[in-house]
Formats: sequence, C-alpha cells, structure tokens
Amino acid sequence: MTQENFKSPLLTVDSVLFTIKDNSLKILLLKRKNSPFQNSWALPGGFIDVNRDDSAENTASRKLTDKTGVTPPYLEQLNTFSSKSRDPRGWSASIAYFALIAHEETNLKVTPRNDESAQWVDVESLMDETANYQPLAFDHQQIFQFALERLKQKALYSMLPVFCLPKEFTLGEYHTLIEIILGKSIQKKTLYRRFEASNMFEETGETVATGARAAMLYRLKEDAELVNFERNLG
Amino acid sequence: MTQENFKSPLLTVDSVLFTIKDNSLKILLLKRKNSPFQNSWALPGGFIDVNRDDSAENTASRKLTDKTGVTPPYLEQLNTFSSKSRDPRGWSASIAYFALIAHEETNLKVTPRNDESAQWVDVESLMDETANYQPLAFDHQQIFQFALERLKQKALYSMLPVFCLPKEFTLGEYHTLIEIILGKSIQKKTLYRRFEASNMFEETGETVATGARAAMLYRLKEDAELVNFERNLG
Repeated sequence: MTQENFKSPLLTVDSVLFTIKDNSLKILLLKRKNSPFQNSWALPGGFIDVNRDDSAENTASRKLTDKTGVTPPYLEQLNTFSSKSRDPRGWSASIAYFALIAHEETNLKVTPRNDESAQWVDVESLMDETANYQPLAFDHQQIFQFALERLKQKALYSMLPVFCLPKEFTLGEYHTLIEIILGKSIQKKTLYRRFEASNMFEETGETVATGARAAMLYRLKEDAELVNFERNLG
Repeated sequence: MTQENFKSPLLTVDSVLFTIKDNSLKILLLKRKNSPFQNSWALPGGFIDVNRDDSAENTASRKLTDKTGVTPPYLEQLNTFSSKSRDPRGWSASIAYFALIAHEETNLKVTPRNDESAQWVDVESLMDETANYQPLAFDHQQIFQFALERLKQKALYSMLPVFCLPKEFTLGEYHTLIEIILGKSIQKKTLYRRFEASNMFEETGETVATGARAAMLYRLKEDAELVNFERNLG
C-alpha cells in the first residue's frame, strides 16, 4: 500500500499563545479574513509550507513571529487534533502548540496583505460560550481549553509561567502571575522557596519601588534549564 | 493564502505498543516489506485513510487491531514528529501513539497480502544501537525512546501499566510489572497501598497458587477511571 492510494489530509499548525496583561491571563486571537469561518476569531496558525519550514515547530514559530514581531521564548507541542469533520474543506489534522510570551515584548502587527485583526483576549471571557469572540473557528475552543488545562497543570510543578513575564521582574510579579493562572491563593513563602530552589534566576542588581519598599528585579540565568518539582503546589 | 498554494505533507500514524512478556518489557515491531527502509524493522502504523478513518486515533487503533487481532485497551497520543527529512518520500508528519496490551490476549497475525513479520522485541535490546533490529526505519528509534520515557514517567504516578497485564492478575504480578518498567525495586507496601487507594480494581473471587500460598486475582472494575497520584513512587 503506498501513499498514491490515499488522498492526503490537510495539515495545519495552530498555537495558543498566552500572556499576562492587565492582571489577567490572555491568549492571542485573530479575526479570520477568509472562509471557512470568515470573520470568526481563531488561533494563530496556518498550513505548513514544505518549501520553507523544516518542521511543524518551525511553522508554529514562524506564524507567531509573523503576528507578534518576536519569537516566543517558550513553545511546546500540545496535541494533534484530527478528524474528518473539523474543517469543512476536508479531512484535517492540526498540530497544536502552546506558547508563552510577555506582551510587553511583542509588537502586534497587521500585515497590509492580510488585515486580520489581532487581539489579546481574556481567558475568562472565553469560558463563556455566549460572549464576544465566540464561537471560535474550527475546534479552536477545544484546543484552547486543552492548552489552558496544560498551563494550569504545569504551573503546579514547574517554573514555566515565568515566560509570561518581561525579561526583568520582581518576586511579587511572579507571585501574582501564579495566582492568576491557578485562580487561587498561593503562599508566598512556598513559592519563593521554589523560585530559589530552581536555581534558574539571578538578581539583576536593580530594584523597583513597590510601595514603601524596593523590590529586587530578577532575570533568567543564561544557561537556565526549566526545573520540574516532584510535588504540586498546595 | 489557501491550501492550493501548498504541497501537502505526508501524514502517517505510528504506535509504540508495549507489553510484558517473559519478564521483560517489549514493543511490537514489524519488518517492512516495501521501500523506503525495505527489510528494516518499524513501528506498526501507516497512512491515514480519509475514506475510512474518522480521526488519527482511529487509524492508530485500526492498524494495531490489524496486526494483533484485538484492540489495545489503552491508547494515548504521544507526540507528532515532523520534518522535511524524516521520510525520503518527502515532507512528512507522523502522529505517534503509545499503547499497552497484554500479549496473552493478542493474536499476532501476518496477512497473506502483506507478509511483514511481527515480533515482540525487548526494550533493553533496542537501547543498544548495534543490536538486532537496528537501525529502525525512519525516526522510529526516537519515537520509541519518547514513548518509553512517557511510560516510565506515568508508571511513577499512575496505575496505567496495569493495561500490560491480562484481564485477571495478582498483586505480585502487578508489583513485578512496575519493577520491570522502572528498572528498580519498589516497596510492595507502597505499591499495594496505591492499588487499594485507586479504587479501580475488584477481587474476582478466584485465587491462583503461588508457592505455598494462594494469591487473589484482581480485575479492573467496569467503570474504573484511571487515577493519577500527586506524588511519584520513591
């Protein structure tokens, strides 16, 4: 049996790009210019360009860079969503990624050729299926929810969410970030102990004023490796 | 930009099917009849049949059932491997799955149309790149190692490996299974406490003789849900 006997499925890449903005967790959505799902909001993505992309991860990264002007510092494959019915154009598979970025470092842009609007959309508002932006194109609601679940799980045992913060940040900002993602209170002491134990960060030597006190700014060490903890945050 | 501008990549599915046999962890390999990689050993898989398969998971399950005669009781998507160079026929993506089965319940068969040989191959022997069966076709060595890592991780915090055992099994068999997968000693007491706490199993009422004593046979409850524990096995 050879490939010639088979009609090829469509193969796309879609990414759920998270950031923290205005004290809430948001993802990047684009308004679709073309059918199918014209004028619906969708995750950034598209077809693999076999002449240009070495791998699907390259496609995901390229599409995100096109939209935001920068390469997200964290990109991870999530899951591949496939079925005969998820795309009206035919049997289709989408390799989904989740990515994190500091919105301050992006430069959201709309190319003249393709005037999709791009928006940072509050994750909370996407949980309500009657709200603005809904329904999302294709099975993007399902992909988004899969990604959100993964991010919340990882926030419990890894330092991963730090990639939503600017390059220099305070412990207080890190604490707020984790509480926003998990949607619950986390003891500062526990979190700071992990921060320290991860050995991923270093003081910049600079401080910022936070109320009456000055807070140290931290940054990732150059050779930092992402640390996973054995126990979940309580 | 529409699909018509793009050459479609090849899209396949490959599965790493684990079992426990002769006190060792094994995976199913098939000898390739056709090029590319003719006569090399490969993971069971193939092209998605858009006229037949509702999803890639259907393809994976169908291919495994074709080869073993039964549907594996556990099948999980692993990762999608894609690149312009992994398949000499062109840009290719393979959606990889990992699956577990009790070898006693399979009926490995070779179809007359397609006389690939099928073998349960010891995982240990696949770690040695100069051994028999090597080198595997495509990037199947990489897919296998990714799957093995996932299985080992999951064995630390989930009851998942139980799907490598026959429908009725003893606690002793379960203990041996976990030690084989992890490659180290695990306290019986700890393991049995988890087994109990998972609430996934029930006594069959039957026992088997093990040395001087009779050991109870257990089976999955009908409505059992896979339980994950918060802490890894020590």
